[in-house]
Amino acid sequence: MTTTQIVLAARPKGTPTMDIFRFENVELPEINEGEVLLKGLYYSVDPYMRGRMNDVKSYAACFQIDAPIAGGVVARVTESKSENFKTGDVVLGMLPWRQQIIVSEKNIQKIDTTIAPASYYLGILGMPGLTAYFGLMHIAKPKAGETVVVSGAAGAVGVVVGQIAKIQGCRVIGIAGSDEKINLLKDEFGFDEAINYKTTPNIKNAIAALCPNGVDIYFDNVGGEISDAVIANINFHARIPLCGQISTYNTTETPMGPRIQTMLLTRSVLMQGFIVSNYQSLFPEGIQHLAQWVKEGKLKYTETIVHGFDQLPNALLGLFKGENTGKMIVEAE
Amino acid sequence: MTTTQIVLAARPKGTPTMDIFRFENVELPEINEGEVLLKGLYYSVDPYMRGRMNDVKSYAACFQIDAPIAGGVVARVTESKSENFKTGDVVLGMLPWRQQIIVSEKNIQKIDTTIAPASYYLGILGMPGLTAYFGLMHIAKPKAGETVVVSGAAGAVGVVVGQIAKIQGCRVIGIAGSDEKINLLKDEFGFDEAINYKTTPNIKNAIAALCPNGVDIYFDNVGGEISDAVIANINFHARIPLCGQISTYNTTETPMGPRIQTMLLTRSVLMQGFIVSNYQSLFPEGIQHLAQWVKEGKLKYTETIVHGFDQLPNALLGLFKGENTGKMIVEAE
Repeated sequence: MTTTQIVLAARPKGTPTMDIFRFENVELPEINEGEVLLKGLYYSVDPYMRGRMNDVKSYAACFQIDAPIAGGVVARVTESKSENFKTGDVVLGMLPWRQQIIVSEKNIQKIDTTIAPASYYLGILGMPGLTAYFGLMHIAKPKAGETVVVSGAAGAVGVVVGQIAKIQGCRVIGIAGSDEKINLLKDEFGFDEAINYKTTPNIKNAIAALCPNGVDIYFDNVGGEISDAVIANINFHARIPLCGQISTYNTTETPMGPRIQTMLLTRSVLMQGFIVSNYQSLFPEGIQHLAQWVKEGKLKYTETIVHGFDQLPNALLGLFKGENTGKMIVEAE
Repeated sequence: MTTTQIVLAARPKGTPTMDIFRFENVELPEINEGEVLLKGLYYSVDPYMRGRMNDVKSYAACFQIDAPIAGGVVARVTESKSENFKTGDVVLGMLPWRQQIIVSEKNIQKIDTTIAPASYYLGILGMPGLTAYFGLMHIAKPKAGETVVVSGAAGAVGVVVGQIAKIQGCRVIGIAGSDEKINLLKDEFGFDEAINYKTTPNIKNAIAALCPNGVDIYFDNVGGEISDAVIANINFHARIPLCGQISTYNTTETPMGPRIQTMLLTRSVLMQGFIVSNYQSLFPEGIQHLAQWVKEGKLKYTETIVHGFDQLPNALLGLFKGENTGKMIVEAE
């Protein structure tokens, strides 16, 4: 049996272009004991994949030249030699960009499509949703009445953080980079206030004005000067989950800034770096809460679905042109 | 009844001198319901008192001119109009430098002199010991086999941190500012290694060489470039209790340094500022553990005891001349 796969043909320089991808037909081997054959249903495209195209060490291993791109995939079992999966099961895994995939039972998990659509397991019930959930609920531990500031607020993680914080009874201020995003945060996702950092002359003062009682939780997706402005307003016993530092990702020398330790010390502040996989054993708890809130209409979720396996490269490149609203996903058919 | 007190006669400029103190005789009033009369036994002199002599806002209120100096005092109840204290009880409180003191029952706590000498409640079982205990055990949570680095290691807190970390089965590296201190840490307090930051050309490399598996816990008493050097060697899932930032206390502008958030993020590191009073409700637990370790000879403790209430100013000034080894205390008689 043959199937189609998409491999990395060359490493991109700067913004990736179509010529770094190559479609190939490959022959699939026999399925061994403990393996299943899958048909891909939904493929996740994510900004972090750009980093994996570089030949550098990071927390995610880099893609190999001439090997398939891989990422979050929701798939259906079409043949099983595993006792844990049967034909028709819908599963989730970090899998290669192939239309049909043979995989060990160890590398997939069953998902429950009765509580949410299958594609949600790549977004609100997947990495971005779980990142927001564990960073906020397990590190920051919000209490009703507290003030929460979220940077990168219009991103896939940020919008979920803000909405969960509202569910917990907090006052929520988002920071994002366009008036369109600011309006979306307030009108669509229920943020109390939002700051356009590109048009606000003094972010520190803007936050002080919007947070008269100080910032109790700062969910940090960006770092840099935006974080300096928030930390200058940090409250006693505040918590700062470090989720992303996108402002520093492209710098080659160590970036300098104000030393923050004295502020953290004198105000008894917690700062905690994390990646979602630290909480892997607790994913079922996170998925259950997120799914419940989605069901109750308390947690809004938007996804952009592109149709056709052959559209995967286009969809990934589209991320860097801002072609998506919310989570970008490719449906196989 | 009259008693003697020591008041702040003038605010010092730079290093304090004897002329900022004044001895006075004052008449004590009647004892009211809920109050006790105390006779001071041991008076603590501490470096932080210098800060309280300035007329600036800090976490501890400043001393008032013509009012008594105040600090940690261990005293005996000589008369009681409180149901909670009886004559002969030994108590601890933040109290004025008076030979006899009338105080509300709310401002003192009974101490148990059967588990340790009374003076220990100003040191190893008091602020410095409890600061070490809660910062290490409740924030850093050491596991056997981990590597612990302590800055300000020869200070009243640092020597206790290092010893508790050894009790927990950790490898302990201290950073201090003289060869004498380095030798003391290794020979007297059981540190595995120690670095003299004044004579070590590249502290980052020195730590890398002494911590081949990285730094799992960094107990930070100093901040600044020493901390930069340690954090450059920080391990995945490390914990950094922020206890002091003495290197920045005298700076007037915000000190700049390398941004640490990317390191904390990519290695899932915890940083937590604290002061010991955050753990007030748990003090009995801390005192019990510290006292047990002292009793078992696992926790060494040195104090310099100066005799005579009238020696209090001299003893405090002596701190700044390095006249003490370990905790400096004045015994009333």
